[in-house]
Amino acid sequence: MSEDFGLRPGEEAIALPPDFDAGLHFIGRIRTPWTRRAECPKNAAQSDALCTIEVDPRFAPGLQALAGTTHLIVLYWMDRAPRGLLVQQPRHAQAPRGTFALRSPARPNPIALSVVDLLGIAENRLTVRGLDCLDGTPLLDIKPYFASTDSKPDARVGWREA
Amino acid sequence: MSEDFGLRPGEEAIALPPDFDAGLHFIGRIRTPWTRRAECPKNAAQSDALCTIEVDPRFAPGLQALAGTTHLIVLYWMDRAPRGLLVQQPRHAQAPRGTFALRSPARPNPIALSVVDLLGIAENRLTVRGLDCLDGTPLLDIKPYFASTDSKPDARVGWREA
Repeated sequence: MSEDFGLRPGEEAIALPPDFDAGLHFIGRIRTPWTRRAECPKNAAQSDALCTIEVDPRFAPGLQALAGTTHLIVLYWMDRAPRGLLVQQPRHAQAPRGTFALRSPARPNPIALSVVDLLGIAENRLTVRGLDCLDGTPLLDIKPYFASTDSKPDARVGWREA
Repeated sequence: MSEDFGLRPGEEAIALPPDFDAGLHFIGRIRTPWTRRAECPKNAAQSDALCTIEVDPRFAPGLQALAGTTHLIVLYWMDRAPRGLLVQQPRHAQAPRGTFALRSPARPNPIALSVVDLLGIAENRLTVRGLDCLDGTPLLDIKPYFASTDSKPDARVGWREA
């Protein structure tokens, strides 16, 4: 466990299997204004900051035909997060919550997901709004956002209602 | 390249780096009615089928506090997809498109994403609607869907407008 994620009362962590089941390639880096965790916005909706997704040149052909697309799903790797934490006690929450009920970076596979506005495309760089991660965060994937299957405006999160 | 993904005219593939940058743990399996690719729905919106997400018991504590949540984001691993294909010629499309403009399973990191309706929770199993993958697909992550940041009902995909 890293210092940032010492166990709080009610939290549960497990030891993960010794071997991985599959491997990831970092396909680029995300450039943001934030170099320390304390500077990052609490969530992406709280920030209007423009960020840049830098796709490694070898993967840049994959950006073809993105023009005119308004929103993207960006997957990136939270390489500083602990992976064994299964029940977490968020600050200001009354009770602990399971990791899969949270968007915390601490999870068995620390893949973060943000929906971003696509504002510009220049060679291998995308200008976007809607990220809240640290500068230099490894990029895993970019997908087009389809309102027909990805937009659920009436969705509710149980622990938020309580 | 697997037989299913032989290169078509206009497609581009690269050799990927020899080493991985990070590793994944499979945290469960997805149970669906489909055992062959040809049987899978073209996209999840075309299917009302109920599917089951089976979380490995060791990770089940992470499901705590999911009750009352209506929609989840499910990440899973397309373990049969080729990873070097950067420009693809979808059937019925007039021109090739970059992998990052598509939701094709073929991508450098074949992490698929579906937004599902959460219909039931029983121990380590979630009953959901909205998946289109093969039975036995490895599970990577489950996240609560927040309408405030994840829902973009007006999003448009450029190549769809053309």
